[in-house]
Amino acid sequence: MLSSRRDVIIVFGVSGVGKSTIGKQLAEQLNLLFFDADDFHPQANIDKMAGGVSLNDEDRLPWLQNLNNQIRHWQDKGGAVLACSALKESYRQILQTDNAPLQWVLLNGDQTLIRERINKRSDHFMDDRLLNSQFNTLEVPHYGIKINVYNDVASIVQTILQKLNNMDKSEIGLIGLGVMGKSLALNILDNGFKTAVYNRSEGEEVDVVSDFINENASYAALNGYTDLKEFVEGLESPRRIVLMIKAGKAIDSVIDALLPYLKKDDIILDGGNSHYKDSLRRQELLSQNNLHFIGCGISGGEEGARKGPAIMPGGKLDAYKQMEPVLNAIAAKDKNNNPCSGYIGAGGAGHFVKMIHNGIEYAEMQLLAEMYHLLKHHNEYEEIASLFEEWNSGDQGSYLLEITIDILRKKEGDQYLLDFILDKAGNKGTGSWSSKAAYDYGSAATMMAGAVFARYVSSFKDQRVRFGIDRHEKHDKVKIDPGILRNAYSFARWINHIQGLELIRTASDHYNWGVDILEVCRIWTNGCIIRSNMIESIMHYLKDGTALLNHASLLQNLHQQEDACADIVSAFIQNRIPSPVFSNALNYWLAMTSEKLPANLIQAQRDFFGAHTYNRTDAPVDQFFHTQW
Amino acid sequence: MLSSRRDVIIVFGVSGVGKSTIGKQLAEQLNLLFFDADDFHPQANIDKMAGGVSLNDEDRLPWLQNLNNQIRHWQDKGGAVLACSALKESYRQILQTDNAPLQWVLLNGDQTLIRERINKRSDHFMDDRLLNSQFNTLEVPHYGIKINVYNDVASIVQTILQKLNNMDKSEIGLIGLGVMGKSLALNILDNGFKTAVYNRSEGEEVDVVSDFINENASYAALNGYTDLKEFVEGLESPRRIVLMIKAGKAIDSVIDALLPYLKKDDIILDGGNSHYKDSLRRQELLSQNNLHFIGCGISGGEEGARKGPAIMPGGKLDAYKQMEPVLNAIAAKDKNNNPCSGYIGAGGAGHFVKMIHNGIEYAEMQLLAEMYHLLKHHNEYEEIASLFEEWNSGDQGSYLLEITIDILRKKEGDQYLLDFILDKAGNKGTGSWSSKAAYDYGSAATMMAGAVFARYVSSFKDQRVRFGIDRHEKHDKVKIDPGILRNAYSFARWINHIQGLELIRTASDHYNWGVDILEVCRIWTNGCIIRSNMIESIMHYLKDGTALLNHASLLQNLHQQEDACADIVSAFIQNRIPSPVFSNALNYWLAMTSEKLPANLIQAQRDFFGAHTYNRTDAPVDQFFHTQW
Repeated sequence: MLSSRRDVIIVFGVSGVGKSTIGKQLAEQLNLLFFDADDFHPQANIDKMAGGVSLNDEDRLPWLQNLNNQIRHWQDKGGAVLACSALKESYRQILQTDNAPLQWVLLNGDQTLIRERINKRSDHFMDDRLLNSQFNTLEVPHYGIKINVYNDVASIVQTILQKLNNMDKSEIGLIGLGVMGKSLALNILDNGFKTAVYNRSEGEEVDVVSDFINENASYAALNGYTDLKEFVEGLESPRRIVLMIKAGKAIDSVIDALLPYLKKDDIILDGGNSHYKDSLRRQELLSQNNLHFIGCGISGGEEGARKGPAIMPGGKLDAYKQMEPVLNAIAAKDKNNNPCSGYIGAGGAGHFVKMIHNGIEYAEMQLLAEMYHLLKHHNEYEEIASLFEEWNSGDQGSYLLEITIDILRKKEGDQYLLDFILDKAGNKGTGSWSSKAAYDYGSAATMMAGAVFARYVSSFKDQRVRFGIDRHEKHDKVKIDPGILRNAYSFARWINHIQGLELIRTASDHYNWGVDILEVCRIWTNGCIIRSNMIESIMHYLKDGTALLNHASLLQNLHQQEDACADIVSAFIQNRIPSPVFSNALNYWLAMTSEKLPANLIQAQRDFFGAHTYNRTDAPVDQFFHTQW
Repeated sequence: MLSSRRDVIIVFGVSGVGKSTIGKQLAEQLNLLFFDADDFHPQANIDKMAGGVSLNDEDRLPWLQNLNNQIRHWQDKGGAVLACSALKESYRQILQTDNAPLQWVLLNGDQTLIRERINKRSDHFMDDRLLNSQFNTLEVPHYGIKINVYNDVASIVQTILQKLNNMDKSEIGLIGLGVMGKSLALNILDNGFKTAVYNRSEGEEVDVVSDFINENASYAALNGYTDLKEFVEGLESPRRIVLMIKAGKAIDSVIDALLPYLKKDDIILDGGNSHYKDSLRRQELLSQNNLHFIGCGISGGEEGARKGPAIMPGGKLDAYKQMEPVLNAIAAKDKNNNPCSGYIGAGGAGHFVKMIHNGIEYAEMQLLAEMYHLLKHHNEYEEIASLFEEWNSGDQGSYLLEITIDILRKKEGDQYLLDFILDKAGNKGTGSWSSKAAYDYGSAATMMAGAVFARYVSSFKDQRVRFGIDRHEKHDKVKIDPGILRNAYSFARWINHIQGLELIRTASDHYNWGVDILEVCRIWTNGCIIRSNMIESIMHYLKDGTALLNHASLLQNLHQQEDACADIVSAFIQNRIPSPVFSNALNYWLAMTSEKLPANLIQAQRDFFGAHTYNRTDAPVDQFFHTQW
């Protein structure tokens, strides 16, 4: 049902696009009168066109003013559909002046297609040559409904009817105006989407919505709600609702609250750091209600959310396609200007990949912390910052290295801020979830797992103070060669990424997600926290479709850097400085490149005490042996 | 309902214990005649006793033979209850000879209590002095019903009736005749419990029960079933059913199958390696049905199950108490001859502690494997075995070290068996469960976590062969000082146990289980796979109720051993041999004894990109700061 304000609909566009045909059927469906603007030309204009001369803007003025009056008349009488070229914004403004708001429906399409149509029609006084000029003249407005005419007429009319119904409605709904939610809402608005936002209005959050609306009054396309039903009803169908709320039970509560108001094919996208198994569960739950759920990882922090994050959506492909225009618009762009967003896979694939992104991030951060720990005994913060700055300009460049440089230089008065920050690292779940996933799928992601443990140990500050041993006198700190350290850092980062991507592959195989690791890396090249030059190098190897360590050249490079990592871990030990994640990198590499490991002893022990049996090197692996030890 | 074979019941025991009183009421309840054996003495005996002279065995013979005839007469007539002292086995044999089996009910009690009763009774011809002699004469049989008379008469009679009802029933039921189930069943039988065993009879398991019964025909107290209902009905109430089946869904299936046959207060004990969260869930499920569930960790492999495992039961204390006599009887014994079994705590506590036992085991095994890897480049297997043997006789002695020595020496012809065992280590879940639990409760159990990863890497044999790098020429293997290695091994094992026990403490706090860590260690001193001399040393520290590292002397000892571990890890690195678990031990120790760690940088990074805030060293920890970096 259209509202009274929508009673005159202007179907406009270049000649031959089908304005009359479509406009007539539309009028029929809406039970409105149909008019063709060409029928309102003064005789002078008709004569001029018949003589093959194009009208100029001066010629058009009286015609447009006449139409303006007609429109007012039609509005008074209950509405009409008008087919009218109205190619320029200035023409459209004349039609609108002093009238109730008009509904604009632009028919548009490929020039070749439209030329073909015209050539089939003999009764039209516009010749083919003028079409170019029309396309050049057309100013596509930022408002109104835009329809591509490649479909048949009936479908086009149905689409217009649906869009007219949605005209006052928002294209995207967003629930949760925390730091990330606000930033993402503004990002969506900046990209031209009419956006409804909802936040509960209670306790400390009582004014969140009104404050946000007031602070962003310049966005005409922003609507705020504190009533969930009104919020949902203010969205066009299918509803596309983005949740930006705390992961966990809150998500289930909001879904439960939304369910009564949702209709078939509506879509809920969870943009928080939810556990991928929850997303899998929620997708199944909503699917039972003929609704869609997209578990969508978003990385980039507050700034990323505002200016362009990396986006990792997972769920059914159909539902993703509905969200794709929005996600592509708001995402960061890669070096080829493609959006750092892409379909990851079904079920919990999106949140899984985002979780592993964070797991990699944990290890990257811990590597920087370990180097800082090692260097600070012999180097001023400014020296460390300069060294990192040098690395950052080369192939070790990364967002995390970049911010570390800023952090090292940050002063409070004449003292470094870093020295006042308590050395207890927090964590919010994704690191431990990643580590547990490694155990769930039998993947040896030792570095992220070690980085999470390192945060735990840092948090046991009281015990560390109590157990603290002063080793300064006994162990003079060895000075570190910066070139060797750089190579060790590069080596460890390679291993970290190899482990993380391998874990994604393992889980993807387990769930049959079919995650494209190369695409994951492309998404990670910008907008996210672990963006770095190394990701580009990784993509270089992945392009042939085989896993990283299958490339002899990479294996060779890492073997060359192995000595650096061995030297650095030895220096850590000599200095009695813990290096759990550098050590894990080295040990993983040494084990993965050892044809023989001492696991034969473990198999013997298991067979000894538990009769678990073992394989033999001189027998097929499907034969199991047990020894009476 | 008693069977026809139970028709004559002999209530026996010392004078004054209440044979007549109880026997009369019992006869009344069973609708049987009551007789007092004293009424059947020949006159010569009556005269002798009246003269204050004790009867000798020759005097008793005609009396007992008379009673034997009377019993046969009573059996023919439908039964009776006879009160009779029958203190010696030889007297009882006379009564039984040529008669249908008698039901023996021994009344017994504290000598002081019985003396008091006699002193209250004036009509009895036995004097107080003879009581001592009666107690000395009493031979308690291994058969029959034994009743302690401290309760009131009515209760005693009820107890006897209940036990008579159970006479043909088994005390314990065991489901699942796999290797562990068979071993445990025989252990239970050896300890004098009437035992019913059940196994499904289908497919390859069709003859499992009958074979087991036939192979163990010497056990009169063993009954086999292939019908679950008959099995349950063959158990005395409350039923005590031990499940020895594969962890996972099979447990739930068997519980579901049992439920229709169970009655209030029946107990199911799961003796497999179930996940503690499943045990928690099952306890709650059965509790809703007024039934009990005990999740019970059992360690010791096949040999332990047969000869005495370490047992870690968890569940409701009441239910545990019902199982306690059996568990205590079958468990290994500690150095004070106390059972290596004890109540761990509610819910999943028992299986949790067993799981962490296995986690510790993973790391212990990996340490041995890493040392074997390091040593084998310069030492023959026999040399390594001799070195380990030397250690095993001292404070590093352990079951795992002991079997490793045997394994190193095991030959196949003139070649070592170890060299034919494939170096792909398997795992069955408890290691990865333990590691995931570390992440669930924020505990840094780095060694077991690393040991599980090491097994994963070993299992990627194909990749290791493909990625294999030959480092022999470049890196000559450094020879290892055995004394330093021993200290490094001791150091790493201490850290491993500290981490494992800390993880138990953390989970116990989380679930409010109240696990007694000292008791856990005591249970682990014998019967289980990780039993070792070190556990005794650990108990020494735990006796004062504080955590291990709170003891300055232990901290000092470990600090002294730190250099050895640092040297050994450096040697591993120099030799390019992976040492994930030795490394994790060292790094954990270095971090836990570092008053300052570089986590301040991590907090700064988190605040930089995610506005996560941080604490300051110069402000209270409840104040959070955010910097506009």
